[in-house]
Amino acid sequence: MKNIFLYDTTLRDGTQGEDVSFSVEDKLRVARLLDDFGVHYIEGGWPGSNPRDLEFFNRAKELKLKHAKIAAFGSTRRPKNNVAEDPNLQALIEAETPVVTIFGKTWLLHVKHALQITESENLAVIEESVAYLKSKGKEVVYDAEHFFDGFKGSREYALQTLAAAERGGADVIVLCDTNGGTMPDEVSAIVRDVKQQVNVPLGIHTHNDSEVAVANTLAAVKEGAVHVQGTINGYGERCGNANLCAIIPNLQLKLGHSCVSEEKLKKLTGLALAVSELANLAPRKHLAYVGASAFAHKGGVHVSAVMKTPETYEHIAPEVVGNQRRVLVSDLSGRSNVVYKAQELGIDLQGNTKAAQEIVEDIKLKEFNGYQYEDADGSLELLIKRRAQEWKEFFELEGFKVIIHKEAKEAYPVSEALIKVRVGNEIEHTAAEGNGPVAALDNALRKALEKFYPALKNMQLADYKVRVLDGQDGTSAKVRVLITTKNGQGAWNTVGVSTNIIEASWKALVDSVYYHLLKTGADGVTKERSNSHDPITITYVR
Amino acid sequence: MKNIFLYDTTLRDGTQGEDVSFSVEDKLRVARLLDDFGVHYIEGGWPGSNPRDLEFFNRAKELKLKHAKIAAFGSTRRPKNNVAEDPNLQALIEAETPVVTIFGKTWLLHVKHALQITESENLAVIEESVAYLKSKGKEVVYDAEHFFDGFKGSREYALQTLAAAERGGADVIVLCDTNGGTMPDEVSAIVRDVKQQVNVPLGIHTHNDSEVAVANTLAAVKEGAVHVQGTINGYGERCGNANLCAIIPNLQLKLGHSCVSEEKLKKLTGLALAVSELANLAPRKHLAYVGASAFAHKGGVHVSAVMKTPETYEHIAPEVVGNQRRVLVSDLSGRSNVVYKAQELGIDLQGNTKAAQEIVEDIKLKEFNGYQYEDADGSLELLIKRRAQEWKEFFELEGFKVIIHKEAKEAYPVSEALIKVRVGNEIEHTAAEGNGPVAALDNALRKALEKFYPALKNMQLADYKVRVLDGQDGTSAKVRVLITTKNGQGAWNTVGVSTNIIEASWKALVDSVYYHLLKTGADGVTKERSNSHDPITITYVR
Repeated sequence: MKNIFLYDTTLRDGTQGEDVSFSVEDKLRVARLLDDFGVHYIEGGWPGSNPRDLEFFNRAKELKLKHAKIAAFGSTRRPKNNVAEDPNLQALIEAETPVVTIFGKTWLLHVKHALQITESENLAVIEESVAYLKSKGKEVVYDAEHFFDGFKGSREYALQTLAAAERGGADVIVLCDTNGGTMPDEVSAIVRDVKQQVNVPLGIHTHNDSEVAVANTLAAVKEGAVHVQGTINGYGERCGNANLCAIIPNLQLKLGHSCVSEEKLKKLTGLALAVSELANLAPRKHLAYVGASAFAHKGGVHVSAVMKTPETYEHIAPEVVGNQRRVLVSDLSGRSNVVYKAQELGIDLQGNTKAAQEIVEDIKLKEFNGYQYEDADGSLELLIKRRAQEWKEFFELEGFKVIIHKEAKEAYPVSEALIKVRVGNEIEHTAAEGNGPVAALDNALRKALEKFYPALKNMQLADYKVRVLDGQDGTSAKVRVLITTKNGQGAWNTVGVSTNIIEASWKALVDSVYYHLLKTGADGVTKERSNSHDPITITYVR
Repeated sequence: MKNIFLYDTTLRDGTQGEDVSFSVEDKLRVARLLDDFGVHYIEGGWPGSNPRDLEFFNRAKELKLKHAKIAAFGSTRRPKNNVAEDPNLQALIEAETPVVTIFGKTWLLHVKHALQITESENLAVIEESVAYLKSKGKEVVYDAEHFFDGFKGSREYALQTLAAAERGGADVIVLCDTNGGTMPDEVSAIVRDVKQQVNVPLGIHTHNDSEVAVANTLAAVKEGAVHVQGTINGYGERCGNANLCAIIPNLQLKLGHSCVSEEKLKKLTGLALAVSELANLAPRKHLAYVGASAFAHKGGVHVSAVMKTPETYEHIAPEVVGNQRRVLVSDLSGRSNVVYKAQELGIDLQGNTKAAQEIVEDIKLKEFNGYQYEDADGSLELLIKRRAQEWKEFFELEGFKVIIHKEAKEAYPVSEALIKVRVGNEIEHTAAEGNGPVAALDNALRKALEKFYPALKNMQLADYKVRVLDGQDGTSAKVRVLITTKNGQGAWNTVGVSTNIIEASWKALVDSVYYHLLKTGADGVTKERSNSHDPITITYVR
């Protein structure tokens, strides 16, 4: 059992990932989240590389972190520069962080081709850069770039570069698998060897190009590394960096090391989701431990076993990492999943075989037509309740018309919707504008219904997704619209399918209104506890 | 160096994944792709569990596979049944496959809680089920479910279950980490132990709940396993199965084992993309080896190094697995990426610093407004060419109006678009219908332009995606529309952003038309080679 230091580089190496981009504001939020979670080091960026990172370090000084130290990242001095005049090293010092991380070259391929200097010049570059930063009072993390490739090319020279960093006074030496091509066995053997040669604590930094970044990190820890670099959700260039969201629970729950407290570990799923929200990326469902699918059961055999004894198909209790169990309903899953799902909604279908069978048939037909309920719990709940309990329609549509009008090349189009609905015997015919056609239709529908159902004031559209479902046979494409709606208590997803995007949106909108009215009652007084179980949408929807 | 047998279970365990669903037709196509790639075994489904799988096996008899054997999957006999009367075993025999795979219980937790039988009854169940299938002339794969958990609970009993399968005559015994919770070191130690006790060839089947499924597979192979189970793209229940798309190149390129020929390995990326298309799932960009980001470079330092010496930041040559290098352009990346990108498009910007700088500024501004070019090469090419070469507008918009009219609750809405464009001095004012508003607008635009540009007949919309970009500060939500268009030669992506979905679609549509016209010329004669470099959209767009 070892204490492992967590070094998060989501804000630096993570942003090299395709599609990953944070504003300065986002970076500050992520830093606060990481600190709150209990990470030991937060690499904030490369102050010498772009103005966004520079601004981050300026503003990071205001962050009152409880636990983590901020690190600024950069390279060793340029070969031709003196350390005191190297702009990159100066930028690192001016970032005013307690920790500075610099990377140096290990691999002769890079020394010769990229730097175009001699072997001994490179050693001087490393030693002097580290020593200079130490002389300025910094805690210095030395990243040995391409360490494993360099070691395989020339063990002797690779070790000489580490010795140079050690002579310079580095506080920790991090072995980097920069290209992500090293296999776990090689990592074990090389770290074991290095451990004999170096007296400074060792760290590990891996990439996932061979899908073994997590295993490589674990292998290095086993051989003595005590400092682990990685990113939240494994974001990073190409295939990503080592995923801290898998590494931390593996180290702590499986291998008995200590990274964060048990209480903090329960925040892991929340952290992963919040960071994906801030990165504006859809959460990756299948991620180990923190993914929405990580404890989701679909196969009939699994579901009935998990209902009896969770550990039969769950390697850990989902709560330990702040995640939760989900049972998926699909045309593959049959009645037992439907019964379980209904039970979650407070409906006992055990004794109502007819309703359960009808629901399974409804789902099969809908899925055949392109619907998918795994992500649309709101619509699924309505589908179940339509069959399982007394049902009344909240309104009837008499018709609508949506018009989008753009008057010139540079003009912003005007969207308006006309709608006619019937509630009981009353007809309401009205119109509204919106930013776009779906918003206009949403506004018109609410305007028409609010007089009957004042509770509609409390709900709002939070997210809107569209997927085109084009059939193998070249028939006209269907679109599936998924809408997330929220009120004060939670959020829920509804789905609509049509070859017309407005019609698909309409269906999802109607379900979202029904769901809200079912939960709050027409008068706005909550009748039912919200059952939207998806931790993503409940907690992090904006 | 060992010959490793590849056992693909995409069609069985893969379909347990959330969102993964194949029609029978899809399954047959996947089987043909797997056979063509050189997989040794294709697990087609569980004939006893659902009608879709039953139909697959009926139709699979018509598949003329060149290489692979089809396997039917199921459980050992029910404890209360005689083998000859067990419906599940009968269904397996009736599937008429050369190979049958059955899973049995290793873990006493399951024997006691799920099966509710004695230890020795379970051993009899295993031995008799295997022996019965052998007596019917089948090649029998025995999957020891929960083997690692069972072994940790009771080594002795776990080994007894394997001995029972061996006595029954199993051709291969597969150690399954069903819950995905086992660490690589444990896998090594346990497989090493088992190898001493069992005389039948061993296989390995892992799940990715701890993000070490690939490493666990490699560890088992190192200790003697010769049969590897997994799925394409790692599809599967919860966090997925072991990903064959990472395992195969790791085994073959890194560890020197033999799985498929070098020629077939070049089809790996194509296989991964085709299977994701058939599963109707967006390809996972960050996948090792086969992902669109696997050889994508964004950081300025990396890009300039890769341009000189690819191996500096690439662990293998992307062509070896059928993938390719990509350079991403974003506001982080600066001029060198833009210059590289332009060079790909046949434009030399080395000497044109002014244009390169303007392009970088354009991209920064557009990205600030929500555009993203990493996925929209068509729009990026237009943006670059607008600055880098002589430019003429193909048409001017005078205005459009889109109307969607739904006349009753059950009526399908009618969509029509009115449009007025100017080409040179001629004005064209026309209208068209469509399945939905975007299709109507697309139809109207082409109708207006076709008289001037007959080449437009050859292009068609292939995919349409929408992303809602809601700002942190609660400003009105923008949507980003990404359109894939194809002609006979390839496909390209264009992007549009607006708070109005029709306006965003319009912008992306206009870019798609411009791109096509730029490539084909107004007369339909190809002027430029299509440069759309994305292997996904070129090859697999439907």
